[in-house]
Amino acid sequence: MPEISERGCLMPASPIRKLVPFAEAAKKRGVKVYHLNIGQPDIQTPDVALKAIRNFDQKVIEYSHSAGNESYRRKLAGYYQGIGIDIDHNDIIITTGGSEAISFAFKVCLNPGDEVIIPEPFYTNYNAFALAAGIKVVPITSDIRNGFALPPISEFEKSITPRTRAIMVCNPNNPTGYLYSREELYQLRELVLKHDLYLFADEVYREFCYDGNQHFSVMNLEGLEEHAVLMDSVSKRYSECGVRIGALISKNKKLIATALKFAQARLSPPSLGQVIGEASLDTPPAYFKEVYDEYISRRNLVIEKLNQIPGVFAPMPKGAFYSVISLPVDDADKFCQWLLEEFEYEKQTVMLAPATGFYATPGLGNNEARIAYVLKKEDLTNAVKCLEEALKVYPGRK
Amino acid sequence: MPEISERGCLMPASPIRKLVPFAEAAKKRGVKVYHLNIGQPDIQTPDVALKAIRNFDQKVIEYSHSAGNESYRRKLAGYYQGIGIDIDHNDIIITTGGSEAISFAFKVCLNPGDEVIIPEPFYTNYNAFALAAGIKVVPITSDIRNGFALPPISEFEKSITPRTRAIMVCNPNNPTGYLYSREELYQLRELVLKHDLYLFADEVYREFCYDGNQHFSVMNLEGLEEHAVLMDSVSKRYSECGVRIGALISKNKKLIATALKFAQARLSPPSLGQVIGEASLDTPPAYFKEVYDEYISRRNLVIEKLNQIPGVFAPMPKGAFYSVISLPVDDADKFCQWLLEEFEYEKQTVMLAPATGFYATPGLGNNEARIAYVLKKEDLTNAVKCLEEALKVYPGRK
Repeated sequence: MPEISERGCLMPASPIRKLVPFAEAAKKRGVKVYHLNIGQPDIQTPDVALKAIRNFDQKVIEYSHSAGNESYRRKLAGYYQGIGIDIDHNDIIITTGGSEAISFAFKVCLNPGDEVIIPEPFYTNYNAFALAAGIKVVPITSDIRNGFALPPISEFEKSITPRTRAIMVCNPNNPTGYLYSREELYQLRELVLKHDLYLFADEVYREFCYDGNQHFSVMNLEGLEEHAVLMDSVSKRYSECGVRIGALISKNKKLIATALKFAQARLSPPSLGQVIGEASLDTPPAYFKEVYDEYISRRNLVIEKLNQIPGVFAPMPKGAFYSVISLPVDDADKFCQWLLEEFEYEKQTVMLAPATGFYATPGLGNNEARIAYVLKKEDLTNAVKCLEEALKVYPGRK
Repeated sequence: MPEISERGCLMPASPIRKLVPFAEAAKKRGVKVYHLNIGQPDIQTPDVALKAIRNFDQKVIEYSHSAGNESYRRKLAGYYQGIGIDIDHNDIIITTGGSEAISFAFKVCLNPGDEVIIPEPFYTNYNAFALAAGIKVVPITSDIRNGFALPPISEFEKSITPRTRAIMVCNPNNPTGYLYSREELYQLRELVLKHDLYLFADEVYREFCYDGNQHFSVMNLEGLEEHAVLMDSVSKRYSECGVRIGALISKNKKLIATALKFAQARLSPPSLGQVIGEASLDTPPAYFKEVYDEYISRRNLVIEKLNQIPGVFAPMPKGAFYSVISLPVDDADKFCQWLLEEFEYEKQTVMLAPATGFYATPGLGNNEARIAYVLKKEDLTNAVKCLEEALKVYPGRK
């Protein structure tokens, strides 16, 4: 029997999904499970998008251009111009989800063995794409006590080696909900110029910034035209996770030309998803206002209630729809499994994502979990109540 | 300015697409270009599929299961059972096109530096996926004189090294149109068992076998449960190239479990494509009969007419909708470019794919080109006429 590859063996199973069998077993026992563990919003996809797909009238579903339909790229460039990011359609490659944009950037910019520095906790799949590309993620630990702000640049400096090729940030941040300030991004600008690195930014939560804070894009850091690479996606902006449409964006012409060769190999991004993505650009402002108001009230509710639970600390997220919270428990992995396997309160329980999966440094995140506030307020209230009751009786409470 | 990665520099530009600017220039001059160069069929997508998408009534376009919707996988398993391939839905991972199935198989089964042996000429993008995965394609040259049959096993034996991990075939073959026989596949079975290798088979043209020849799947080679890996796609079967839905199939449980980890990292295959793929399984037999009859008459027409041109040899394809033909020219790359740049016949010309792009061995395919008979018969007749006239006046004729 032939063997599985080393990278296949090393590839981590999704830390969120490994609890899924326990959630399913709980449901079979008749227990209602509140899913605070995943970033699948319950928000409706915009009507203009759903209408576009119902009106699809082509007779042959053909390959699109490998970089995506030109009509979509042109209109998408208009969207970026409208939010102050000055790019044109030639700076864009439409990808199969934000996932593929990350994967292309890693393969185009880094050789096997090269290193990308990422503040941790970070989106777990960065590690998976890095492993698949043969590159190494070097984490810099951020701190829950300041809401997971950018670690001091001196910490980055200490981690730079001859193999360092890029710094990567997710802004606003998944899993922490932190929004990097203009000042923090300018610090990164100095750093990447000094060491001639790429600056990758996953900005898929751009539309979700709260309390009057403005999003600042890496594309607007002057002098970084050859360094800045933007990964984007329609998944969260329009609640279209399933269409698998994202974008890789850079003003570095050689980078885009090289990424196009990878894009040509896989022929084209999904054609129907592009129809939806293009139509979504006509989503009326009222849609975003409503979504924004909903998330704000969910956030305020869930963070307030979490901080009322003795021993729990939840920093107030400034963006996205996540927070990494600390819990008075011995081991968050064990606790999250126990919630599903052994606990119930009025036939209900709650599913969290243990934070260990978001840290690359072993041992970190042991008393933390990520919550996603993507449920209706009533469900959020019940979910937090479950957590409160659970912490009263959890045997490994600290 | 930071550098592009080595693999990015090495990644070949698509050999087909590098002629595209010349085709566009010809069109601007008012010259009609017949595209025999690409495998984008003009056949209509089945009505059941188009109807399914127009009736799409979900309010949120959500992520699907990373392995694909269970309802689709169960129904797809039924399709395979119906054609004598005994698998169940747990043996299937729905992928983003056949492309992703190939890419997953390479990464799951081979370490960087490992080798996969493939008869050449072969589908160019195998090389691109191999390069992206850091693995090496070792070609074994097949011969136009016997229609590109499987090269003798002794040739494979000579190329096996300690790094050889897999043999790969495309059956029926793109670009040659060759259909491997049951006997040839049994020879490969002996070989992979002897050396404990994987046997990868890209069978996306399964439905296109002519002259009473039956397709034989690697999944039916007994004793290869742990070795055989099937890559499939809906693109050609239902003329749905743009939906980007394929499948990775194996009875090797560890291989599928490992591929699932790669699939989880990219979250899910396209949701709308899966709706279409699932609906397409209800395509009535009359659709395939009509498509089949159309391709047979196109093939017969184009191959007959090509072989009437002095100096041209076109082997009769037994499957798919391609043929690699030999041309009386000095250099097929130059000739194909000349056709677009300098030639016209009654304001028309023809675009072919130079075969050099389908060979890994430098220098081979210099007098060959791939044609795809995916156009209406009238257009095929005109296209071949253009080729005939062109060969009368091409300065590099041999």
